[in-house]
Amino acid sequence: MAQTATSSICSLVLRIFTLVLLLISLIVLTTNTKTIEVSDGSVRLRFSDVYSYKYVLAAIVFGTAYTLLQVGLSVFKVINGSDSNILFDFYGDKIMSYMLATGAAAGFGVTADMKQLFDASELYFHDFYDKAYASCSMLFFAFVCTAVLSVLSSYALPRST
Amino acid sequence: MAQTATSSICSLVLRIFTLVLLLISLIVLTTNTKTIEVSDGSVRLRFSDVYSYKYVLAAIVFGTAYTLLQVGLSVFKVINGSDSNILFDFYGDKIMSYMLATGAAAGFGVTADMKQLFDASELYFHDFYDKAYASCSMLFFAFVCTAVLSVLSSYALPRST
Repeated sequence: MAQTATSSICSLVLRIFTLVLLLISLIVLTTNTKTIEVSDGSVRLRFSDVYSYKYVLAAIVFGTAYTLLQVGLSVFKVINGSDSNILFDFYGDKIMSYMLATGAAAGFGVTADMKQLFDASELYFHDFYDKAYASCSMLFFAFVCTAVLSVLSSYALPRST
Repeated sequence: MAQTATSSICSLVLRIFTLVLLLISLIVLTTNTKTIEVSDGSVRLRFSDVYSYKYVLAAIVFGTAYTLLQVGLSVFKVINGSDSNILFDFYGDKIMSYMLATGAAAGFGVTADMKQLFDASELYFHDFYDKAYASCSMLFFAFVCTAVLSVLSSYALPRST
């Protein structure tokens, strides 16, 4: 029982940390715009102009909603000492960790290749892609936390039977 | 014991299926080149010109090596009826499923955005990106198999203690 309480608090701390990382990632991604003056007007780049960043946004939004739900449930569990829904934690953490991992990977991949492509052109979008990197890095750290949570919830599986 | 033997055979079938998918993905990715004649010569595009596809290749190579090792171990287990290394399976399947998922995500993301970018130019690289999609789709199905294996090896965890 003491071990269960400790692991509940550990999970809660990890989830709050994940939530903070996801919120920072969300803010950095959605506020990322860059306008460049060119000879015949201006070029404006937003995160929504890049398909992959839309998927990154979807991953962050689903991740945030799931983590908020889990933080709520964890606080309830820690206060009331009630049992957690082990199967929900197991599959939820697993699916969410895949979602965050793929979001970060799609973001990193497209950023690296777009940066290389724009390096060859005269359009200076470095700031934009540097901010995108920052957002994806936060998402990656949120994934690492969720992967650890997924290992913890796998070890809790025996208690579900 | 009967259940363990059945799940060993299930795992073996899934691993062989993963291996076949990874090999198809590898062949489609590495043989993917496209040469286009332009006014002043020709433009040649290979998978190694795109950062993200290099990561896709790395994911496929690591995935293939790991799956080959696991197929070898599984055949040995099925023939000798010996116990499997449950912790190695658990962490191995988990890490490999993340690697394959991120490989497929990076590949899909960059393909979608590059296609959109080249649609706007007069360079006709559709074949190249369609083949890249095919390779990433195979990698995605290999990931699904590995994710199922990862669930199975999580359920086997209680037997490790």
